[in-house]
Amino acid sequence: MKNAMAETYKKTGDLPANMSLGPAIILVRPQMGENIGMCARAMLNCGVSELRLVAPRDGWPNERAVVTAAGAAHVLENARIFSSTAEAVADLEYIFASTARERGMSKEIYTTEAAARKIRSLNTPGQQKCGILFGPERTGLENEDVARASAVLHVPLNPGFSSLNLAQAVLLSCYAWLAADNPFSAGDVTLETGVSEPATQQDIENLALRLEKALFDSGFLNNAEKNHITMRNIRNFLFRSNATQQDIQTLHGIFVSLMGKKSW
Amino acid sequence: MKNAMAETYKKTGDLPANMSLGPAIILVRPQMGENIGMCARAMLNCGVSELRLVAPRDGWPNERAVVTAAGAAHVLENARIFSSTAEAVADLEYIFASTARERGMSKEIYTTEAAARKIRSLNTPGQQKCGILFGPERTGLENEDVARASAVLHVPLNPGFSSLNLAQAVLLSCYAWLAADNPFSAGDVTLETGVSEPATQQDIENLALRLEKALFDSGFLNNAEKNHITMRNIRNFLFRSNATQQDIQTLHGIFVSLMGKKSW
Repeated sequence: MKNAMAETYKKTGDLPANMSLGPAIILVRPQMGENIGMCARAMLNCGVSELRLVAPRDGWPNERAVVTAAGAAHVLENARIFSSTAEAVADLEYIFASTARERGMSKEIYTTEAAARKIRSLNTPGQQKCGILFGPERTGLENEDVARASAVLHVPLNPGFSSLNLAQAVLLSCYAWLAADNPFSAGDVTLETGVSEPATQQDIENLALRLEKALFDSGFLNNAEKNHITMRNIRNFLFRSNATQQDIQTLHGIFVSLMGKKSW
Repeated sequence: MKNAMAETYKKTGDLPANMSLGPAIILVRPQMGENIGMCARAMLNCGVSELRLVAPRDGWPNERAVVTAAGAAHVLENARIFSSTAEAVADLEYIFASTARERGMSKEIYTTEAAARKIRSLNTPGQQKCGILFGPERTGLENEDVARASAVLHVPLNPGFSSLNLAQAVLLSCYAWLAADNPFSAGDVTLETGVSEPATQQDIENLALRLEKALFDSGFLNNAEKNHITMRNIRNFLFRSNATQQDIQTLHGIFVSLMGKKSW
């Protein structure tokens, strides 16, 4: 199911219609085109594609944005332009203001992860209800913009060095949304098997048995009381190694070669 | 406790000695100085400060790195330079290779979040055991570097657009480590109270009672059967608003003013 969704996504480059929408990303008075493009790229990395711009300083469209967006040009092409924050959020129901500074006003503050869960709970397929406001690079959001928001989004970073650039702030917010229910994650830890299939337990045991006999003959296993501990340790190493069939063949070859033979 | 730790961090700019270490970030043959600097900045944003460089293309030190590192210059100054990946990881115990591509070799693949938990479980205060390898911007890690790693770190992104720039890949890995046990997060959702204290329930009820009387007198509450429902809805709005004492004073003023009076 998840893999099928990933394949659809891969082919079209667009969000599958049955997927929950990511937040609308609203850049308020962004200054540098390069940063707008990098935001578009970071958004699309995470499957977020709705970009709104409030009064971009250098006008719109902006060639510099296209360069840094890399392959995310269609996010820029579909961006909507507004002259005020109020117009940009008029159709939305829940707005986060992204800010690192305290504003001296009463407002709930969400971590990136809590905001992501809130967005997941409100946005559904085809229903864009949530947006995140990001301020200009140099100054951040004005208090008037923060006052308009439902809540504050605060990325809990090193308090001695918390200044993120604009695209990095957008990336962390969008990635948190993706990570909150990631259809592209195969699971916490998966095993890439490569060209050779994993060895079976019997493959590994066969190797261990041949090695045991060889080590007995060579005199390495020369302590009747401790031989079984030595072999247990060797088996522990061999069995936890996630060895492929190729790895086991290679080990057979190594042991035989070290014995000066051509085969066991 | 957590606030005290944050304060210490804020003053010194250095990792408190009782905090678990973040991963060593190992940039293998990085190309552009600008990107090295942006990696240093992203690391320090997340409280990660150990940077190792393997054969940086343009030599070291690099002035362009200093510019983009912004305030993270000391991460660059303390960076260690190696001529090979093997030397750079010699003292470490567990290495992740960060890569977006499949490599056709048998290896466990960790998501960003699972890798963060693994690093938390191995690194302890003062004990640097884990590192993450990042390859050159244009090509990523070579298979020889991936083969040297204990496991692969894969950021599960939009499969149709998964190319992250170097500093963004470093940022997501470091942020995941920080987020796995964040001493700087006050909690999922907190309330910034601002300059005015939160209103008490009695403050709000007093307002509701006065408003109820005024609305009865004005004829707004003119349906004996439904007045209680109307007032319940008004109370619901007032009580869920997280109002401050200042907000309540302002509402008193608004209502009195609309009644053409100077006080209730």
